[in-house]
Amino acid sequence: MTRRSNTAFELLILGSSSAIPSDSRHPSAQILNIRDRLFLIDCGEGTQNRLWAHRVRWNRMSHILISHLHGDHVFGLPGLLTSLSHLQRTQPLTIAGPLGIKNFVDNIFSHSRTHLSYNLTFMELDSEVEGMVWDDGLIRVRWFPLNHRIPTVGYRFDVEETYRKLKIEKVSSFPIPVNRYRDIQEGKPVSDSGGNIYQADELSDLIHYHKSYAYCSDTRYFESVLENIKGVSVLYHETTYLEELSLKANETGHSTALQAAMIAKKAGVGKLITGHYSSRYDDLMPILQECHSVFPETILGTEGLRLEI
Amino acid sequence: MTRRSNTAFELLILGSSSAIPSDSRHPSAQILNIRDRLFLIDCGEGTQNRLWAHRVRWNRMSHILISHLHGDHVFGLPGLLTSLSHLQRTQPLTIAGPLGIKNFVDNIFSHSRTHLSYNLTFMELDSEVEGMVWDDGLIRVRWFPLNHRIPTVGYRFDVEETYRKLKIEKVSSFPIPVNRYRDIQEGKPVSDSGGNIYQADELSDLIHYHKSYAYCSDTRYFESVLENIKGVSVLYHETTYLEELSLKANETGHSTALQAAMIAKKAGVGKLITGHYSSRYDDLMPILQECHSVFPETILGTEGLRLEI
Repeated sequence: MTRRSNTAFELLILGSSSAIPSDSRHPSAQILNIRDRLFLIDCGEGTQNRLWAHRVRWNRMSHILISHLHGDHVFGLPGLLTSLSHLQRTQPLTIAGPLGIKNFVDNIFSHSRTHLSYNLTFMELDSEVEGMVWDDGLIRVRWFPLNHRIPTVGYRFDVEETYRKLKIEKVSSFPIPVNRYRDIQEGKPVSDSGGNIYQADELSDLIHYHKSYAYCSDTRYFESVLENIKGVSVLYHETTYLEELSLKANETGHSTALQAAMIAKKAGVGKLITGHYSSRYDDLMPILQECHSVFPETILGTEGLRLEI
Repeated sequence: MTRRSNTAFELLILGSSSAIPSDSRHPSAQILNIRDRLFLIDCGEGTQNRLWAHRVRWNRMSHILISHLHGDHVFGLPGLLTSLSHLQRTQPLTIAGPLGIKNFVDNIFSHSRTHLSYNLTFMELDSEVEGMVWDDGLIRVRWFPLNHRIPTVGYRFDVEETYRKLKIEKVSSFPIPVNRYRDIQEGKPVSDSGGNIYQADELSDLIHYHKSYAYCSDTRYFESVLENIKGVSVLYHETTYLEELSLKANETGHSTALQAAMIAKKAGVGKLITGHYSSRYDDLMPILQECHSVFPETILGTEGLRLEI
């Protein structure tokens, strides 16, 4: 067990539009900051500009996770990868996405004869099954199938750690030097100035931390997803249309706001974030209201929204 | 000969940066409006957003002309083509560019399984020679070789027409009905209310109109280009660096401001427009001053510049 030095688990939404971008909305892209490790989720055209605009330290990205190869989720990727190279990135970068993602990038770079300044590793995911993208003991990232017009996957991030939280009133009631508090957090016994010894359990509580985030875009209403997103702290689920266009949603492989809220409710998630709005909706309040009718803990996802998971 | 109903020949600069875009600069893209026919020249990432922002009626584009397959000139193309399809375009569209442009687009769309709402025709250009892209009798578009790190072409647009301009004082001195003026402009004889007949030559001057624009990006200082751009009304020539970085310019296949101005002078062009600035230059005035030292008729090309050719 180590001391808990960093608690960041923050989502930043860079784009909330579906296919056609506008002046104020941008295509899909999100940054998930977990303990200062950055995951970029989807990468629509202009994502690198959004990263600049929101002052994201994008060189800290370790992974780019692509849901599927429709343009509004991936056309920003070649430019972003090229710019990282112009900026002399040296750390390796992993791109995960459905089968084809490697050829998509490789073919573009073969035409531009681009040689990146860093190593790029591809994980091509079978969109028919689920599996592990990353597991470092603290952060686990899994992919799972969605139900769209082309092979599409969702992602789930679990952050899980056990740490000691000081019983600060109790600790400070003994003459224990402040510079030994760190030892308590690391589970070691400490002694006070009078030579009395205290076990870590006396002075601290063992806390089990577990938070999670799941990303579901693009997809039809798809109950098979429930087992994969069950109980997450925060769920992003696309809400391309209102329920009155449920036929169109099904035809185009998308979900309505009502359907997203039903998924959130059935999966027992903490909060639902909406997004991937059809360009027909200038006013997004009806989307939010439709979700609220089924699942009150819904937040409207828009450009620039930051949310602590 | 027809009456001259439309005189537009206007350039709009959408992007002036080289490889790394920033908040205020965008990668290469220009719109050339010739008699309401629109030519898009290069298409860096985010070009579709620039077209929205400048309220360009982009469905009037008939041609997209790509200089080369480096990302800052072409990464906006897949998104723009996709959006035109989402907007239900039906008119065919021609894309010209160096060999590989077709595979670049086709491969991306094969991954996204995109089927456009309109016909796309590709003209793959041999970047070692020059030739004709378009000639409708009024507008001629030619391509010619540039000298960069990968196959790259420039484009030259010539607009040439002969039309009659009324000698308005003379015409109005006779009792000729105003609704016959159009006949004069079309070269027909007209009669006045007294039965006198006038030949078109008496009442109008035959005007020969010829204006031209050339686009040279990206390229080293390359004198072979002179014959292709000789005497154009307006020349856009990249000015990535100041002359103090001439070695870097040569190494990376670019030109300095001084070199661009020398090309403009030697080619005897009317005006020079600069662009494709390295991201190291926040202040562009030194670029302009360096050009002015050799070629005073230089205009600083920046986002939003509109210029009547």
